[in-house]
Amino acid sequence: MSASDTVSAFIQAWNDIDFDRVMAMLSDDIEYHNIPMPILIGKPAVRAFIDGLGEPDSVHWEVHHIAENANVVMTERTDSFVFNGKTLRVRVMGVFELEGELIAKWRDYFDMAEFQVQMAELT
Amino acid sequence: MSASDTVSAFIQAWNDIDFDRVMAMLSDDIEYHNIPMPILIGKPAVRAFIDGLGEPDSVHWEVHHIAENANVVMTERTDSFVFNGKTLRVRVMGVFELEGELIAKWRDYFDMAEFQVQMAELT
Repeated sequence: MSASDTVSAFIQAWNDIDFDRVMAMLSDDIEYHNIPMPILIGKPAVRAFIDGLGEPDSVHWEVHHIAENANVVMTERTDSFVFNGKTLRVRVMGVFELEGELIAKWRDYFDMAEFQVQMAELT
Repeated sequence: MSASDTVSAFIQAWNDIDFDRVMAMLSDDIEYHNIPMPILIGKPAVRAFIDGLGEPDSVHWEVHHIAENANVVMTERTDSFVFNGKTLRVRVMGVFELEGELIAKWRDYFDMAEFQVQMAELT
């Protein structure tokens, strides 16, 4: 499986709302950084973050472009979540650093205000 | 020259503060989109934006990772500018779509607040 295939499978796990499969694809010392937010280090921190999302009706992360260079995979995406019938949609670029078939580092770049304005409308 | 080499040369032109060289590497119908800002279409719009930056003392865009897939190049960068001795530093991911050796589409993803807070401190 190529590095890009691994990341595509990871995104598919998100789209399947299969968070156990999401977690299984992360290394124990995962560093997950939504750049405008504090970095999360280690699986328990990431799991708590994901659990904090609640239970989306649906998740659709659309990959516009993907490219790899050795163990590094870069994506341009639109990440959509539906909560209680309302859609949250964020334009994102993300970079994944793999160790074998596990994701060891993951950084997503997006505009925090775009995310927050929509979050506020959900509640 | 690989697609990545073209983008690396483009970033070098920024670091050399050689905006004529920057402009020469864009296609006439360039679409330049700083995602949190309005899209700029065509060379005159891009030139006006660049001229609006004023005259930086120095520019340093550090490329952390670069990957390509056919005519698409993706970068993870820290873009630094020094104006009047003060540094503006923004964490960015950007995607470039090439037509031959020209950049036809360029989208940069970053947190607008990170940029604006620093811009405010410059003045």
